[in-house]
Amino acid sequence: MTRSGERIGVGLVGHAFMGAVHSQAWRTVGHFFDVPLVPDLAVLCGRDAARTRASADKYGWREVETDWRALVAREDIGIVDVCTPGDSHADIAIAALEAGKHVLCEKPLANSVEEAERMVAAAERAAARGVKAMVAFNYRRVPALALARKLVADGEIGEVRHVRAVYLQDWLSDAESPMTWRLRKETAGSGALGDLGAHIVDAAQFVTGGLVTGVSALTETFVGERPDERGGRDRVTVDDAALFLARFDNGAVGTFEATRYALGRKNAMRIEVNGSKGSLAFDFESMNELSVFTDAGPDSGFRRVLVTEPGHPYLEGWWPPGHLLGYEHTFTHEVADLLSAIGTGVDPHPSFADGLRVQRVLDAVQTSAGSGSAWTSI
Amino acid sequence: MTRSGERIGVGLVGHAFMGAVHSQAWRTVGHFFDVPLVPDLAVLCGRDAARTRASADKYGWREVETDWRALVAREDIGIVDVCTPGDSHADIAIAALEAGKHVLCEKPLANSVEEAERMVAAAERAAARGVKAMVAFNYRRVPALALARKLVADGEIGEVRHVRAVYLQDWLSDAESPMTWRLRKETAGSGALGDLGAHIVDAAQFVTGGLVTGVSALTETFVGERPDERGGRDRVTVDDAALFLARFDNGAVGTFEATRYALGRKNAMRIEVNGSKGSLAFDFESMNELSVFTDAGPDSGFRRVLVTEPGHPYLEGWWPPGHLLGYEHTFTHEVADLLSAIGTGVDPHPSFADGLRVQRVLDAVQTSAGSGSAWTSI
Amino acid sequence: MTRSGERIGVGLVGHAFMGAVHSQAWRTVGHFFDVPLVPDLAVLCGRDAARTRASADKYGWREVETDWRALVAREDIGIVDVCTPGDSHADIAIAALEAGKHVLCEKPLANSVEEAERMVAAAERAAARGVKAMVAFNYRRVPALALARKLVADGEIGEVRHVRAVYLQDWLSDAESPMTWRLRKETAGSGALGDLGAHIVDAAQFVTGGLVTGVSALTETFVGERPDERGGRDRVTVDDAALFLARFDNGAVGTFEATRYALGRKNAMRIEVNGSKGSLAFDFESMNELSVFTDAGPDSGFRRVLVTEPGHPYLEGWWPPGHLLGYEHTFTHEVADLLSAIGTGVDPHPSFADGLRVQRVLDAVQTSAGSGSAWTSI
Amino acid sequence: MTRSGERIGVGLVGHAFMGAVHSQAWRTVGHFFDVPLVPDLAVLCGRDAARTRASADKYGWREVETDWRALVAREDIGIVDVCTPGDSHADIAIAALEAGKHVLCEKPLANSVEEAERMVAAAERAAARGVKAMVAFNYRRVPALALARKLVADGEIGEVRHVRAVYLQDWLSDAESPMTWRLRKETAGSGALGDLGAHIVDAAQFVTGGLVTGVSALTETFVGERPDERGGRDRVTVDDAALFLARFDNGAVGTFEATRYALGRKNAMRIEVNGSKGSLAFDFESMNELSVFTDAGPDSGFRRVLVTEPGHPYLEGWWPPGHLLGYEHTFTHEVADLLSAIGTGVDPHPSFADGLRVQRVLDAVQTSAGSGSAWTSI
Repeated sequence: MTRSGERIGVGLVGHAFMGAVHSQAWRTVGHFFDVPLVPDLAVLCGRDAARTRASADKYGWREVETDWRALVAREDIGIVDVCTPGDSHADIAIAALEAGKHVLCEKPLANSVEEAERMVAAAERAAARGVKAMVAFNYRRVPALALARKLVADGEIGEVRHVRAVYLQDWLSDAESPMTWRLRKETAGSGALGDLGAHIVDAAQFVTGGLVTGVSALTETFVGERPDERGGRDRVTVDDAALFLARFDNGAVGTFEATRYALGRKNAMRIEVNGSKGSLAFDFESMNELSVFTDAGPDSGFRRVLVTEPGHPYLEGWWPPGHLLGYEHTFTHEVADLLSAIGTGVDPHPSFADGLRVQRVLDAVQTSAGSGSAWTSI
Repeated sequence: MTRSGERIGVGLVGHAFMGAVHSQAWRTVGHFFDVPLVPDLAVLCGRDAARTRASADKYGWREVETDWRALVAREDIGIVDVCTPGDSHADIAIAALEAGKHVLCEKPLANSVEEAERMVAAAERAAARGVKAMVAFNYRRVPALALARKLVADGEIGEVRHVRAVYLQDWLSDAESPMTWRLRKETAGSGALGDLGAHIVDAAQFVTGGLVTGVSALTETFVGERPDERGGRDRVTVDDAALFLARFDNGAVGTFEATRYALGRKNAMRIEVNGSKGSLAFDFESMNELSVFTDAGPDSGFRRVLVTEPGHPYLEGWWPPGHLLGYEHTFTHEVADLLSAIGTGVDPHPSFADGLRVQRVLDAVQTSAGSGSAWTSI
Repeated sequence: MTRSGERIGVGLVGHAFMGAVHSQAWRTVGHFFDVPLVPDLAVLCGRDAARTRASADKYGWREVETDWRALVAREDIGIVDVCTPGDSHADIAIAALEAGKHVLCEKPLANSVEEAERMVAAAERAAARGVKAMVAFNYRRVPALALARKLVADGEIGEVRHVRAVYLQDWLSDAESPMTWRLRKETAGSGALGDLGAHIVDAAQFVTGGLVTGVSALTETFVGERPDERGGRDRVTVDDAALFLARFDNGAVGTFEATRYALGRKNAMRIEVNGSKGSLAFDFESMNELSVFTDAGPDSGFRRVLVTEPGHPYLEGWWPPGHLLGYEHTFTHEVADLLSAIGTGVDPHPSFADGLRVQRVLDAVQTSAGSGSAWTSI
Repeated sequence: MTRSGERIGVGLVGHAFMGAVHSQAWRTVGHFFDVPLVPDLAVLCGRDAARTRASADKYGWREVETDWRALVAREDIGIVDVCTPGDSHADIAIAALEAGKHVLCEKPLANSVEEAERMVAAAERAAARGVKAMVAFNYRRVPALALARKLVADGEIGEVRHVRAVYLQDWLSDAESPMTWRLRKETAGSGALGDLGAHIVDAAQFVTGGLVTGVSALTETFVGERPDERGGRDRVTVDDAALFLARFDNGAVGTFEATRYALGRKNAMRIEVNGSKGSLAFDFESMNELSVFTDAGPDSGFRRVLVTEPGHPYLEGWWPPGHLLGYEHTFTHEVADLLSAIGTGVDPHPSFADGLRVQRVLDAVQTSAGSGSAWTSI
């Protein structure tokens, strides 16, 4: 890994699922994309020293830290990658930015609008000093969704009228599946809403180029208590499902739904957009495909575009047509874009401000759901 | 057509699209189903004598009437089939029931709750005298949806948690497509809501066995004026799209959307239901199929059931497996069920009361949409 | 059914599955297509008087005959429709043609090339006297396949290079399913080959406009004996599956497969054609759809054309877009085309000569399969 | 990358497409699989020193060699990975095995049966000394196909009756796309047959557990000349498409087709297997899915199994359900299996003998195609 570029030290906080995926991305990016800075997998940070060391060995990190403050203070670190639960995002990201580190922060940006606002302020101060901040809505880097955005921006489907977005999983369908940090308000902030809903709100805004201006929502918790680690039962304090209607600043209307109770749907992050000249449809369970309807003639129809051609977004680095990419590649694309932004001085997207915008929508969803689905403006 | 049964005279009011489909159903039913009464295509009724006569010749009706009151008064008529726009449903159906005629009435039952209530009252009085009334939600007779209801009723998917229903068409996408009676509040009552939304509300209640108890809604009119017949432009006074969230009396939550602006979707009446043990999904554009997920093992998945097997609902009368049925067959099944109900004395479904229940939901949708999406109970 | 046209008496021989479908077609055609002659369902012919009378009542035929010779001799009959097993096709069709009756004959045209040749000769003699003959390859009247032929003929996919055709059913998968006339060489001529293979050979030639010039084949009988009606076991004397490679006169190459042992495939009559500029794919289990690939740009893909638009073949008579047709409609289209041909004096297709061409291919398949798959020219 | 295991030096010969994919696999395997030996990306070997050095930098190899003989002689190399065109496989692999290096050799094993036989003999001699040899049919490591094999082996679909395998690409459809080594007999041995056909023959044998015993074949070259590098035109000396019928030692029959002229099909490596109790279907363009039909009840159907669950083959190392894998992962699985085999002393599959078996089938295809499709036993 000795391409022309300078090396930049990366410190990763968190080593669960997201930590593993981000590690693979940092390790892989330089072999497939012509990035101006080559990431050095310098430090993995976690609270438990032994477990963190084991993860560092497994995921290929050289050193470990057990206090993120120590990580942020290190001179050899240029990028801090925040993969912890949402309740610590603000503290870590703000400290890192203030220490002059570029920051990649997992989504949702924060557990509250107030935290997110402080993060945006920190990002703006940092930007003035050339320090970059990016929130990790990885679905923006699915080639099919990047293509979708391009087609909308190019006017291929005309004026956007309808958005239909769902994110369906089923891992909580069993009422006896155990309690996790994701089901506690203190750690997760919300349930399906922040975990899954955040993704489809960002994707809808990204693909259509419009912003959600108001919502009417309801949330539901189907299973109120679950087995805890100590053989008892613990109260679920977040939503199991969140459903909302939305209006966009471009005149479009939309329906959104996030749930972990859609049996048989494993990772069905789906979005359909209907415009005045065409339509687009996507399902992450077939993530290499985009359904496109752009020609209203008699022999027209949705065409299944396999988004694996040379000219498609992010495809220049990979394999021949029809040789599919997977989930992890979205993260490789994400860090490639961040490294490019750092190297060239442009601002990466999605910015913390983009993350805050999503956070405000999630907040409005909770407000509306708490007040009889009353329309709530953002 | 001389099966054992007695003959019963049918009078059909209206000879546009619905009249043509109903004619084919009446003409065909006796050849495929062992009905206790054989329909006699006696009278077609329309306002324009010449055009009605031409339609009668084309669709196989013996005589014509130009006043539905005359039709209702005829002694040789046993069944009145109402295929007019919604604004005349109440008058015709109530008069027919009072004259002792069995009534099949197209959906939506009426253009207002008040009319629908009067129709239900008339149907109840008629029922006491053995006269039957049925509202023509034909999608209940799609074999795949009848099978879906059976699977839910048999407990195959457990407790219902999620309903996701859309009815997507695209014939109004072009802003220059002309004005029709379907876009005027006086004749149609509402737009996509009554035309398409009525179907998915009924289907959701039919399949799940639950009733919608409240909604939060928004409606939108994308194109406010359209070319009229006289070369001018006319105001569209109904909704182009209706979106709503719902709660059911069984604890389920749902999203609904009806639109005629989903480019590329021709007749995508879709419903997905997720339960605690399984899931079902249906799309009318593949109407012979039901997607079923009922076994949560590691090698499980949605299975595509081709609903054309001998034991499937309504299939006993038709072809071998894999030899598909079409749209018109749902009407043949509908009149078969009505004739059976008349012959055996049971009450057919969907009853006028079922139609009223749908009407109340549509009414609540309009109320909510008119009051900032505020939650509106039914 | 009193459209402007003259009436023509139809006599149908055979009242099993095909008899039922043809009856529905004759009964329905005049209500949806502007045919120059209106069919009169005059006589149903079968060997057993009582059973034939019952079928006539069920399917709507006025009179019955028990000897096809008597039917052919009747003055009130203008069209003889032959729906018997293949071993009687030649006798009935030739006699009818000689008696000056137009003939619609079920496929395969005959059980042997020799019979088919005699039928073609009779059809040619009859044609000279204005009498029409047509073989009932109903799949030509699936709108999607008629559209496919049009697209190929219009040059939309360029020069045809590949044909890939299968006809998969599964009703013989169970080794204990009983013996039928379809499994005896004397009555059926062949097994899957004549029953299913005939359809895909005709469809391939129809869609591509090319003729099969040679084949290499193998056939297989998986289950040699089956339970018979008398509680014993009877030998299966036909093929269970037939597989063959083919070359076409236009330079294309093809693979063909017909089987009744493809578990889970109910009526998967599928054909894919790849040309130098595009491709087409069809599956009868989704018979209202045609997959079309015609634009080799980067965002291209197979598009799912719902063949239910006004301009699509045969659609002028039916419902709005997205309101699907079924299996039976292909027969309605078939008799509409035959009635038009009779009325206007043009020659209908597929002709008996087309049927003979298919027969010669089936014959070559058997020859090749019997001689070590050696290449066998047609 | 300092897991418990010992390190083993890897030398890779070839740095085109396959070299890039194998590099990613060697680099990644230790981070996701608990392999007993950790690969050290020691040496990349190519003829052009500068280009090889550039590739080594890009793909992460420490040193380079320009002569494979030098590579094979190095003491620090434990595994030689052969990613060159087929004409050099035998020389390199045999030399490496004789030098005591474990060998991973790309497919097809060789360009002729004679070469393949010598390779098998070398592999057998090497095996006696504990040296392993494996041919890189990577599709065996698609989780869905590994699951398919398991389901067949477990008897889930009963006795295998039908195999239907195609490998469709379209990159040669344009008659003006340029000449490459893949279109010259000297380098490639054959065209679509060896490149694509080899994969589906191996996959069919792998999934069903049966061996092909005979074939009848035809091959075709649609475009005889193509633009060469020097502005002239060069003769294509290999097949553009290969089609064959086959019989298996377990009584099954099959159709096979390999082509690079199926416009719109990018990497459609498809296989369907029908057994006496069930069926399986796979398409590499949806590589995370397996269609499974195993229950012949009335509500049965092909179910879409998303092969991303914890218990599925190779999934223990990766992401949560529904988070898809891509093409490259099949190679990571491949080297994981090879490292396990080396570490535990078992023989890896597919062996060189498996590769020879495929080679014999390809050879029989060419013999049959050259002799009027005459049946040719293997």
